[in-house]
Amino acid sequence: VTWLQLSNDEPYGLSTLPYGIFRVGADQARVGVRVADQVLDVYAVARALGHDSTRVFDATALNPLMELGPASWSRIRAWITSLFAEDAHRELVTQHLLPLDSVTLQLPIDVADYVDFYASERHARNVGAIFRPDNPDLPPNWKHLPIGYHGRAGTVVVSGTPIVRPHGQCRSGPDPNPVFGPSNRLDIECEVGFVVGQPTDLGSPVAITEAEQHIFGVVLLNDWSARDIQAWEYVPLGPFLGKSFATSISAWVVPWEAFTSARIEQPPQEPQVLGYLDTAAIRRPGLDLHLEVAINGRVVTEPEFSAMYWTPAQMLAHLTVNGASLRVGDLFGSGTVSGDDRTSFGSLLELTWNGTQPIELGDGSTRGYLDDGDVVVMTGWAPAPDGGRVTLGEVSGTITESRTA
Amino acid sequence: VTWLQLSNDEPYGLSTLPYGIFRVGADQARVGVRVADQVLDVYAVARALGHDSTRVFDATALNPLMELGPASWSRIRAWITSLFAEDAHRELVTQHLLPLDSVTLQLPIDVADYVDFYASERHARNVGAIFRPDNPDLPPNWKHLPIGYHGRAGTVVVSGTPIVRPHGQCRSGPDPNPVFGPSNRLDIECEVGFVVGQPTDLGSPVAITEAEQHIFGVVLLNDWSARDIQAWEYVPLGPFLGKSFATSISAWVVPWEAFTSARIEQPPQEPQVLGYLDTAAIRRPGLDLHLEVAINGRVVTEPEFSAMYWTPAQMLAHLTVNGASLRVGDLFGSGTVSGDDRTSFGSLLELTWNGTQPIELGDGSTRGYLDDGDVVVMTGWAPAPDGGRVTLGEVSGTITESRTA
Repeated sequence: VTWLQLSNDEPYGLSTLPYGIFRVGADQARVGVRVADQVLDVYAVARALGHDSTRVFDATALNPLMELGPASWSRIRAWITSLFAEDAHRELVTQHLLPLDSVTLQLPIDVADYVDFYASERHARNVGAIFRPDNPDLPPNWKHLPIGYHGRAGTVVVSGTPIVRPHGQCRSGPDPNPVFGPSNRLDIECEVGFVVGQPTDLGSPVAITEAEQHIFGVVLLNDWSARDIQAWEYVPLGPFLGKSFATSISAWVVPWEAFTSARIEQPPQEPQVLGYLDTAAIRRPGLDLHLEVAINGRVVTEPEFSAMYWTPAQMLAHLTVNGASLRVGDLFGSGTVSGDDRTSFGSLLELTWNGTQPIELGDGSTRGYLDDGDVVVMTGWAPAPDGGRVTLGEVSGTITESRTA
Repeated sequence: VTWLQLSNDEPYGLSTLPYGIFRVGADQARVGVRVADQVLDVYAVARALGHDSTRVFDATALNPLMELGPASWSRIRAWITSLFAEDAHRELVTQHLLPLDSVTLQLPIDVADYVDFYASERHARNVGAIFRPDNPDLPPNWKHLPIGYHGRAGTVVVSGTPIVRPHGQCRSGPDPNPVFGPSNRLDIECEVGFVVGQPTDLGSPVAITEAEQHIFGVVLLNDWSARDIQAWEYVPLGPFLGKSFATSISAWVVPWEAFTSARIEQPPQEPQVLGYLDTAAIRRPGLDLHLEVAINGRVVTEPEFSAMYWTPAQMLAHLTVNGASLRVGDLFGSGTVSGDDRTSFGSLLELTWNGTQPIELGDGSTRGYLDDGDVVVMTGWAPAPDGGRVTLGEVSGTITESRTA
């Protein structure tokens, strides 16, 4: 169904077609679509064909495209698919396919508000056991609502951005006074991020059955975390500087529509949730996403999103139930995706049990937490309608030495 | 020193000259400066005089003006003062002075990230005693760092915006399961907000001696809080839906430069803070701001900012010490301003001790928390160089009935 020469196991085939923002040299950035190891200059093709949404592709973020709404998202995705299917477009499209390594990828969205959830039961239990050993693993509210908090939108960065090790305060040993220095417990959190493409008015909650209509697409998200800073600062108002130095997301946003074959049941919820969180009317509210984290080329964990207790629709319905409005470009993360054991925990905090059981990287070295120079790469995929895969945009980052004022 | 007819006790005289965004009817919004009960159409005057920054006044937010930087802020404030001082400008300026009640005021800034601090020792002790009676009033980190967290930038609204009572989950009585409904403990928090006008690069902390150069101006801020929702949700990741439904700020941003005569010493800090928070090199790091909160016309408290333990420069230095970048339009709130006793506590939580000691409003009614229809108005002032007052923009809001999806 395409004139493109694609192998059967091509990760970025026609089932994925993610959107990103690219530029060539010093040219103005604009919207691109990835296919195999090439980027389609959608603006150039749309302009040549007189497409009625041409202007949204001549943009430095996906926000104008998202503003068009779900019907347009669907129509445009079908049009892009047709570009690769119809021989009549072959010559034009080929002219505007650029090698991936000839372009620079930018942050794909202007991030409005960023919210991070805590939706994996295993992750929440692990963190509770490590940080609050004298209390029950799960706080009493955990099974009644998807716990979340606001993060720093201004420090969401695109995959590939170097991550400067943060300075901060932490407690060390028995001394009750904090010390100041570079974080010694720099960690990852392997998460899935959901990009909101449709706004709401202040004071108007989103019904759970309508929640998914607000989701434009999906990214991978690395919620970099300085555990020593976080542990000292987070009581009583939550994580702040332990998280706000950087959050990395994929350069490629995979449309929500691409995940139709990845829909699954969610794990049973007991006790019964309140009505505004009830997913009974949603057919297969869960998502079957397979994730993988590599440090310096060595796969260290393979989290499964299918085990997440709370679904994206539940997170979005909860986020707005108090009347909080949504904006185009809002981003919410799932929280660390952790499975049942050390083959699938989504953070070093859990994989090394707060550094007490270091992992081996295969080159003779071990890690409790990240060293300067470490390269972290997160990848993922979902089943596609054609039996192949929908590939999530990878998110990578290299740790660089700390700086002070 | 002015051709304006101003009374000696005019609250919006030449010592204040705050910036806002106004529109007339359906016209495009633009920058205005308030003087007495009039608004100067700065764009019209700047255009007529060929001012070299004219374009920043033809904007729907103060962000382009803020981008110009501190030297320009100072130069433009001097120019605006001269417009009212020099008879040569009288005719032109008079043509472009509009009655306040003939314009609509909008949110003055495009809010980038919003951070809320917790900088009043009395407030923190009161909240600790009410919410965590089994623990010490202050958490162990409180005197070592200005505790803060990110709030929802997208629900920061301008003074006068109606506040819809939020729905949410809370616990009621001995039942361990939550109930869902409109908040029954809707509260205010009287705060001062600081608007960041100069950005920084990711990975580059701001030294405390340079922190104030990033502050463009000051607003009053009402951090509306649903205490029942907040109490149930906030462990372990902090406040979320209990706060995110709305945060109101003044329509008028008073330039930081206006507060030169309001600078005072801050309260002593013991134990000694870490070096990056040390204000020894800042002359008079505190601020002498006098605040007042009225409910339905009755003054219920008069918080004093002078008692705040942490200064604005300390908050900004802490916010960036991990390398988090600043953007033009970032907003940070001081946290509730509470003085030593019930004449100066900054929230109903404290004034009524979580509703157990209702306050009287003088019309025979009492309040534990806010009722639908209640009108809350916060005002404030600081000493001006001429012996008069710098007036903070008021922030008001009326509670309206809750809505569901």
